[in-house]
Amino acid sequence: MKRVLVAGGAGFIGSHMCDKLLLRKDVSKLVVVDNLWTGRAENLAHIKDPRLHFVRSDVETLQTSDTFDEIYHFASPASPPWYMKEPKRTISANLLGAFRLLDLLKKGGRFCFTSSSEVYGDPLVSPQPESYKGQVDCTGPRSSYDESKRCTESLLFELQRTQGLDVRVVRPFNCYGPRTRPDDGRAVSNFITQALTGRSITVFGDGLQSRSWGYVDDITEGFARYFWMNETDYRGPLNVGNDREISVLDVAKYVSSLMGGVPIVFKPSPPQDPTNRRPDLTNAKYVMPEWSCKVSYEEGVAKTLDWFRAELKPRAPKASAIGARSPRQRKPMQLSGFSSL
Amino acid sequence: MKRVLVAGGAGFIGSHMCDKLLLRKDVSKLVVVDNLWTGRAENLAHIKDPRLHFVRSDVETLQTSDTFDEIYHFASPASPPWYMKEPKRTISANLLGAFRLLDLLKKGGRFCFTSSSEVYGDPLVSPQPESYKGQVDCTGPRSSYDESKRCTESLLFELQRTQGLDVRVVRPFNCYGPRTRPDDGRAVSNFITQALTGRSITVFGDGLQSRSWGYVDDITEGFARYFWMNETDYRGPLNVGNDREISVLDVAKYVSSLMGGVPIVFKPSPPQDPTNRRPDLTNAKYVMPEWSCKVSYEEGVAKTLDWFRAELKPRAPKASAIGARSPRQRKPMQLSGFSSL
Repeated sequence: MKRVLVAGGAGFIGSHMCDKLLLRKDVSKLVVVDNLWTGRAENLAHIKDPRLHFVRSDVETLQTSDTFDEIYHFASPASPPWYMKEPKRTISANLLGAFRLLDLLKKGGRFCFTSSSEVYGDPLVSPQPESYKGQVDCTGPRSSYDESKRCTESLLFELQRTQGLDVRVVRPFNCYGPRTRPDDGRAVSNFITQALTGRSITVFGDGLQSRSWGYVDDITEGFARYFWMNETDYRGPLNVGNDREISVLDVAKYVSSLMGGVPIVFKPSPPQDPTNRRPDLTNAKYVMPEWSCKVSYEEGVAKTLDWFRAELKPRAPKASAIGARSPRQRKPMQLSGFSSL
Repeated sequence: MKRVLVAGGAGFIGSHMCDKLLLRKDVSKLVVVDNLWTGRAENLAHIKDPRLHFVRSDVETLQTSDTFDEIYHFASPASPPWYMKEPKRTISANLLGAFRLLDLLKKGGRFCFTSSSEVYGDPLVSPQPESYKGQVDCTGPRSSYDESKRCTESLLFELQRTQGLDVRVVRPFNCYGPRTRPDDGRAVSNFITQALTGRSITVFGDGLQSRSWGYVDDITEGFARYFWMNETDYRGPLNVGNDREISVLDVAKYVSSLMGGVPIVFKPSPPQDPTNRRPDLTNAKYVMPEWSCKVSYEEGVAKTLDWFRAELKPRAPKASAIGARSPRQRKPMQLSGFSSL
């Protein structure tokens, strides 16, 4: 039986992974550590499983004498307005978080980390294979996220090389879906919450920047396969994403069409917004040949819209209700949101 | 009057910077923190100045209630065999070190950090301007150094952006000179110690990889100008190096010639050894127009040879004496050394 720790388990991706972990019969205890900075207690509220234990704490200062067979490190904001506002805290969550979590791993245990396609920065090759070294400005306003993901990867792969640490690192590409914060600030959730609250849809830049939109069920299915389901000799970081590349503007137009033609307005681009992003899935197909993204963006966006409609229902459909869903969370930030992120 | 902390002040570059700081009349106290991992107490032994206080400690766990007007963060191994052997410790020294040091900085104080030209990885442009985003493999065997420098830069520049932190970051290019450890493992010191101890000079690869060899007096003079001497509105990272690019083999041949024709042997390249490295000094000339590298590699190598000759004299000229100079230091690592680093 396995004792499992999930850092950031109340977050968007983290909570979906908790659902998957609790389907396993060999998990005896699942400890979630989350400071509810960008995570939300509601994301776990549906779970009645007695194996789940929630600890509200920063991961980097977690106090516990427990050790774990498997550790999943999802603790980080993932949306630019959030990490650009608190860069030091972002680096701390990722990297100091990893240092702390390594102390809690049993000898021979497995350490799984959610890195990001942001390690590629604004890529000069497309699609991006894992071997692409990226183009990140390590002094720029997005660097706290990009560089703390890169440096945490370095820490883990160097421990793999020097000490044989059992490491699994995934690099997700633009994941969206239910349990995204309404005030998350990234494109799909922004478009949907704007449309649902009677506002225009805001596109930053010309909207022609492309992304590979991965519906959360597809992405987390890929994570689970690499993290624990599939046996593999592949030891590198693994791209997990949808390789159908769609422009931000196309998504905005689609959300608009679902809501009866909400107007689209354009605002200036945020700094260093990548122009393109698309995963090379060669290694993913090798590691998990049975896996592929099954949810089209049209279907995924429609499902996400349904979820947000229910999520936003209990309150009046006003912008002021957004971000005030959880009484336990920090005071929500006032975010303008970057719709192309 | 300024209270100053130098992390890594017993190291190669750090100790030279302590000499320069103690020339200042406005420094009332200079605290050196060093764990003597790659630093050596001998590097400070010549200083009799009562303002100097030495604390032997890892920087990331430094215990003190003092705060400082200026903090200089030089704490990191800089030679590949050292950081490749202890990558976790290397990341910790740089990044967790920076977190700890930031706690000790007085409000309005200045934080100076020695990054590295290694942030450029194996560069695809030459010379490298500070704006070049680099080509670093964040999962590779050199990544602990490269990525911890990059991530620490990110931390500091993001604090500059969000909180107005007064930051000065330099990126030195291949510095060499007196006070390099005999077992440092990089090219100039390796060639010299090999020649002085009756061994062949080892060149890794074909030796045609180029470097910009900066003599320590020139490099630290540039640091001092950017860190405290010159007023400037330039707020970015600053390349400091010698832009005369010389191959590793040429340096080996020159050392050989100084020692009467020591044989040169070739060994396979270390992993991911950069093929070239040369600073674009446009910004350096803007910040400090009066500065330039004045010491040619011929002169600098000869001076370094003299220093090593004296340094190695007290013991018999045997390889076993190298690295055992300081009774206070950790057991020296057995290093083969990478002569092209």
